[in-house]
Amino acid sequence: MRLAQHLFNRLGECRIDCTFGVPGDFVLPLYAAQAESGMRTIVCTHEPGAAFAADAYGRLRGLGVVLTTYGAGALNVVNATAMSYAEHSPLLVISGAPDLSQRSPEVYIHHRVKSFESQLRIFQEITIDAASVDDPSTAARVIDRVISAVIKHKRPGYLEIPRDMVNHEIAETPELRPGKADHSHIVNSAALNEVATEIIARLDAAKRPVLYAGVGVRRYDSASDAVRLAERWALPVVSSVMGKASFPESHPQFAGIYMGSLGDQHARAVIEESDCILTLGVIHSDVNTGFWTARLDSAAQIRIDDDSVTIGYHRYDNIPFACIVSEIARRRPSRTRRFTAHDTKKTHHAELDGPLATANVIEQLQGLDQSKYSFIADVGDSWFIGLELRTDIFLAPGYYASMGFAVPGALGAAIAQPERRPFVIVGDGAFQMTGCELATLATQKLRPIVLLLNNSSYMMLESLDRPRPYYALKSWDYVLMARSLGCSAERVTSGDELRAALRRAEDADCPYVIEAIVDKSDTSPVMRRIRNHMIAARAKQFANPVMNSQKREIEPARAAKI
Amino acid sequence: MRLAQHLFNRLGECRIDCTFGVPGDFVLPLYAAQAESGMRTIVCTHEPGAAFAADAYGRLRGLGVVLTTYGAGALNVVNATAMSYAEHSPLLVISGAPDLSQRSPEVYIHHRVKSFESQLRIFQEITIDAASVDDPSTAARVIDRVISAVIKHKRPGYLEIPRDMVNHEIAETPELRPGKADHSHIVNSAALNEVATEIIARLDAAKRPVLYAGVGVRRYDSASDAVRLAERWALPVVSSVMGKASFPESHPQFAGIYMGSLGDQHARAVIEESDCILTLGVIHSDVNTGFWTARLDSAAQIRIDDDSVTIGYHRYDNIPFACIVSEIARRRPSRTRRFTAHDTKKTHHAELDGPLATANVIEQLQGLDQSKYSFIADVGDSWFIGLELRTDIFLAPGYYASMGFAVPGALGAAIAQPERRPFVIVGDGAFQMTGCELATLATQKLRPIVLLLNNSSYMMLESLDRPRPYYALKSWDYVLMARSLGCSAERVTSGDELRAALRRAEDADCPYVIEAIVDKSDTSPVMRRIRNHMIAARAKQFANPVMNSQKREIEPARAAKI
Repeated sequence: MRLAQHLFNRLGECRIDCTFGVPGDFVLPLYAAQAESGMRTIVCTHEPGAAFAADAYGRLRGLGVVLTTYGAGALNVVNATAMSYAEHSPLLVISGAPDLSQRSPEVYIHHRVKSFESQLRIFQEITIDAASVDDPSTAARVIDRVISAVIKHKRPGYLEIPRDMVNHEIAETPELRPGKADHSHIVNSAALNEVATEIIARLDAAKRPVLYAGVGVRRYDSASDAVRLAERWALPVVSSVMGKASFPESHPQFAGIYMGSLGDQHARAVIEESDCILTLGVIHSDVNTGFWTARLDSAAQIRIDDDSVTIGYHRYDNIPFACIVSEIARRRPSRTRRFTAHDTKKTHHAELDGPLATANVIEQLQGLDQSKYSFIADVGDSWFIGLELRTDIFLAPGYYASMGFAVPGALGAAIAQPERRPFVIVGDGAFQMTGCELATLATQKLRPIVLLLNNSSYMMLESLDRPRPYYALKSWDYVLMARSLGCSAERVTSGDELRAALRRAEDADCPYVIEAIVDKSDTSPVMRRIRNHMIAARAKQFANPVMNSQKREIEPARAAKI
Repeated sequence: MRLAQHLFNRLGECRIDCTFGVPGDFVLPLYAAQAESGMRTIVCTHEPGAAFAADAYGRLRGLGVVLTTYGAGALNVVNATAMSYAEHSPLLVISGAPDLSQRSPEVYIHHRVKSFESQLRIFQEITIDAASVDDPSTAARVIDRVISAVIKHKRPGYLEIPRDMVNHEIAETPELRPGKADHSHIVNSAALNEVATEIIARLDAAKRPVLYAGVGVRRYDSASDAVRLAERWALPVVSSVMGKASFPESHPQFAGIYMGSLGDQHARAVIEESDCILTLGVIHSDVNTGFWTARLDSAAQIRIDDDSVTIGYHRYDNIPFACIVSEIARRRPSRTRRFTAHDTKKTHHAELDGPLATANVIEQLQGLDQSKYSFIADVGDSWFIGLELRTDIFLAPGYYASMGFAVPGALGAAIAQPERRPFVIVGDGAFQMTGCELATLATQKLRPIVLLLNNSSYMMLESLDRPRPYYALKSWDYVLMARSLGCSAERVTSGDELRAALRRAEDADCPYVIEAIVDKSDTSPVMRRIRNHMIAARAKQFANPVMNSQKREIEPARAAKI
């Protein structure tokens, strides 16, 4: 068997039906082998977009692949790969490379930087596993090892394949069998029983238990277990910012997004008053904790992380996330519990005939049939507006916060989950970075709706600082531009116009861009609270967060209360 | 003195009048300090474009600076920085970073990847010097060290400045005094005399001496010395591909670009028949050697590199490039020599009224008043068409070959050298990557002429392979798009139309885009020769180049003759 056959067979076993990339000479033999294997390639306009698309595909399908050339290709996906690492996203970067037979220290082949190993070393800094596949006798095992690591750890991996290895004969290896089953043979069942029993006892004894769902729930494909668990114990469910929509938000027990004092106030009350917080895969980042304004009682927490469970102040190691969540979802409470619903849906009522307000935007997005769409939000107020929606599919660079994710992300989402239409929320700054990937969506006959919020500024930066000339963004003629890329487009300036545009967008058979003119002083509720928090914190000489790494608990940022 | 004051003072001493970038929260204090120092910031649409612009600025001014935020910003300039390294371009990357006071292993601040050091380690792989400026007692020295290394070695450098260091008080250091003077105290004058005397003797004794100018001539600002040297010894001058326009091509002694058997045939004869090849700063890369078809007699070579001189088979170390070139330019030949001119200008005559042919394009570009423009070419046939021009300013990613350089490069070139108007030659594939940076050119009131060669394909890849669906590029409405970004634009399909469009472009007071429709089968002479070479080489089972690293000479690639 040839190396490339093995590689594409494995990707097929992992349910990959396409890769994303831009062709370039060092990767052409891989492109040819991929075509031969019957797997599609989605050619993007620029590698950063290709990698964002692959990342989004991976978030929905468990693995996404970007296929790129050496140097000028691969080094253009470093930022997106770093995002995947930070956000626990299963992205596989496959890079072509110069022929092994042509390498010597004195040979300067185009795309080469310091040494032929520079690129591998760079990717080692931002992946869970990275390898140059340069030995036919170990090639199959190395490929399997990196793919397995990506799937197991939900972190990016890197495979570098020299051009003269692509069609090299290699030894075959057994089927990969990715997924949950991987864990079954390594889990100590006595340990699993002990931890599950302790968790169940805590839940049973609690007066106001709550489930706190993080990004891990989606990454480990544990949403259905989380739903069963929440239903059996009648738990209200709060999600983290980054974990938004990991737990289906259409579920009646969903109580909102927790972001310390800056986010949803109902969700805040539910979780901060809880005496038993079952925390599933939450990363305690600055954003998730509402810039360290989160106040959670460590003694009340049960934290299930990638490979460990922490209860109060003690920890169980080597307990895989999906395994323990599935185990406790199987068990039952000692008495029947009934969930008492609160009406937590927010209602925004804004004038429709005045200038378009952010409140109009939120209200009208809330009015869409959420089950038809996957929402993809970019950084800034696009993301915070997205937090106001109740949606079951929501993708955003919610921790790493790289601008320009949303339009290419829609490409990956549309292909990974064709039954839902992508709905993109993006600001003008982010759109200027990667908006051209709309052309790829049009070429692929996909039909995203793109709501482009044009406030002619890097508003978020300005509101955290003060007006400065370099925050002003010149307005492009976005409508003309979208048309030049094969999309339909229109500009709206009032709530009425937005409503009509959304109706037209629903009927469109191509990408539909709605440029919404908003004032930079009119922001989402979350953005307003962040700004007020930052101003207050600065005024009080903001003290830094103190993290107690032993106890894994977050102590309040002194003087940062608002 | 505050750290940022020191930094911007130093940049000012290095004749930097602006930096390029995109603002982001970790770099805002640096932006504020820069504004206070009176230095302009050029806000670009996306970091890859900002870094290309800074690189182009640096190629013309001796130093270019990209100022970027941590993570999502800096990791987006890795590719451009790698290009600068490969192509010996003096680019300084300055990145903001999280406050030192907020760092601990358990703190997850947005934009953080594996550890707070990951980014620094990545840049160490692609720079000559990289540092996190995290100690006030050494800050000034570290900043000076990195800037000096960039200027001395003409390679990129990296400075990471934590947010809470920006306004920290630091100790001052003496003025930096960058430039040639740096070398004076470290050169052994006896060694310099010995090597200069040997070179002069060789030149004097030679029957057909030639000057072979590489990129080093421009990087070390040695063009006027090279001109004097060529004139005194009546040397014909051949440039390398990457070194194009390092030696002014308007000079009567300029004989063409050497690219082995694939480039200019007159230049090839001049250099391959020479008995004394004075080689100034040429990198022996695959492209410069015409994919290893170069046939230069090692015994006839005098190679002046960054820090050494090799004559025949012996070498002098610690001889700085600019120093030795200046020294031999000071000396005189033993007898007066007179240059005999050949008419080497090529004439392309193509029909003007049929469909637009590449020959038309070349002819009409040759007809422009070259002294008014700086030419910036992107990868592929744009670059090879550029090789047919006689121009004194020519920028291209001539070794690293990263697509998307030209439009942002024009931004840097226009600001670095305002007396020349940028003339961009770019293909549709490259334009799709970074063409939006036209908006920044428009915002800055700059007036590039952009010739967009639209052949609806990744033609270069296809011609090295065979037709495949993934080489087809969907044509955008580039005229509409350019207008949406604030440019004038038109489409041409014949030689007549191109001629008229170029006249209108000359009068335009904004960026002017000419979309030229060309057939993908109609390519430049160099592209045709490369394709024929590759086909022939493949047919003969292309053997790999054998490099003799001891003798630093390139042996012929076996069986690769055509």
